[in-house]
Amino acid sequence: MNIAYYNGKFLPKDEIRISPDDRGFLFADGVYEVVRWYNGFFYDMPGHMTRLGNSMRELRLQWTDSGSFPSIAEELIKKNDLAGTPAMVYLQVTRGAARRTHHFPSPGIDPTVYSYAWGFEPDTESKEKGIKVMLKEELRWSRCNIKSIALLPNTLSYQEATEFGYKECIFVRNRLITEGSHSNFFAVIDGALYTHPESNNILSGITRNNVLRIAAEAEIRVREEAIPENKLRFATEAFITNTSAEVTPVIEVGGNTIGTGAPGALTKIISDRFASETSALRR
Amino acid sequence: MNIAYYNGKFLPKDEIRISPDDRGFLFADGVYEVVRWYNGFFYDMPGHMTRLGNSMRELRLQWTDSGSFPSIAEELIKKNDLAGTPAMVYLQVTRGAARRTHHFPSPGIDPTVYSYAWGFEPDTESKEKGIKVMLKEELRWSRCNIKSIALLPNTLSYQEATEFGYKECIFVRNRLITEGSHSNFFAVIDGALYTHPESNNILSGITRNNVLRIAAEAEIRVREEAIPENKLRFATEAFITNTSAEVTPVIEVGGNTIGTGAPGALTKIISDRFASETSALRR
Repeated sequence: MNIAYYNGKFLPKDEIRISPDDRGFLFADGVYEVVRWYNGFFYDMPGHMTRLGNSMRELRLQWTDSGSFPSIAEELIKKNDLAGTPAMVYLQVTRGAARRTHHFPSPGIDPTVYSYAWGFEPDTESKEKGIKVMLKEELRWSRCNIKSIALLPNTLSYQEATEFGYKECIFVRNRLITEGSHSNFFAVIDGALYTHPESNNILSGITRNNVLRIAAEAEIRVREEAIPENKLRFATEAFITNTSAEVTPVIEVGGNTIGTGAPGALTKIISDRFASETSALRR
Repeated sequence: MNIAYYNGKFLPKDEIRISPDDRGFLFADGVYEVVRWYNGFFYDMPGHMTRLGNSMRELRLQWTDSGSFPSIAEELIKKNDLAGTPAMVYLQVTRGAARRTHHFPSPGIDPTVYSYAWGFEPDTESKEKGIKVMLKEELRWSRCNIKSIALLPNTLSYQEATEFGYKECIFVRNRLITEGSHSNFFAVIDGALYTHPESNNILSGITRNNVLRIAAEAEIRVREEAIPENKLRFATEAFITNTSAEVTPVIEVGGNTIGTGAPGALTKIISDRFASETSALRR
């Protein structure tokens, strides 16, 4: 039986029921985080907490007890016997339940806080062999830096990608590569590692930010510059990052092979260093 | 006690509880409609049904029994003793509850269908005196023609408007006026009635479409052309339309007075004709 967290209580996930007046259900008026448990520790929980704070500030969500999330997450790992396995914890905070109005409820109401954990099976095949991704004209809003639950554009795009046999959909806005439907995108061009800079057009990925740090530590040249779509053909390597995919090589973009069609050398250096950090956490 | 509809059953609204796995709650993966009851009939129910079908098709939502909505809506009016008053019925259809994945659940699952009714108090003061609206750079996605529940951008924008004392937020995309956060926008320039043409950038409003018909019947010149923001200063009249506001005059946009600062003559003609249609329904 999965034990989840809901508004201050731990209870069986099956018993949690959301009000149909919840603004998460009616308006996508909420934010979320997904953190990863590496058999002993959460990877970069401070990074996730900072981003959660940023997303909540953008929406002016008031969860005064948000600082309790790390201990909620640990408790969910314990209560679900996940301490010794790879696992994930999902957190969602919405503005709460109130009579339906486009403006915020006034006076303010308590937010809805929901969190649950599950055992996680890493996709090792994709990490070893690399994946093919599709390209699609950006269709999302202009505040992709907010980790909101308004994910309809992401799900529609990812669904389209999977139906064409791709493992991710990468967006192009004004001819520049932004990011994937639920990942950040990197490419190696002329020996330098490129990724879209932080802006309203991408989510500040936790894995992205750690990869940038790791690349710098490995003395790889890093350029936080958007890649024009028509420069992709010069890429010798590419990869995506997110909390579940970590560093997953990309061997084909929009039907065009990247480099030799196999995971690249710099990708491997970064991926190995990332893996050693996450296994180091186990000690 | 409010009686609502949930997945085939009528039951007290307070007893309805949505699963936290519902894709409406996690991904904004759903669509909605709001229909208006005029003391005896729903206004343009066929228009709402066609749009619901379009939205569902865009999301590939499968609610095979969607044709039953008109009778569900009437039943809600009856069960809540609203037959003799102005009322609204809200309908939301989501992809349903399933393990959280960005792609659609496979195999498919049953959608979540939720509907409820409430007595409605028209905002006669705004309709008589007109309203002030703000202008804001468009921040929504590129598929605003879908009436989806991914309304976070709309709520944030409308909240901003209300805090500045405005009654609506009108969006500007690439220097062209698109529509409001939950209304369509019209302006009279050189004696012709302008509104943004149907496209991915606006919702095909039911009131909008009826107003265009009514304007043509009244032999008002109609131009379905986007108004450049810098042409707004030539507007002698403006109004917004939606199911609850019907035809509500706009007397100020972004701090600039429209015309004389009072509701305009063509606006009144259209508004009066709209009112006579909706009161005719009562007969």
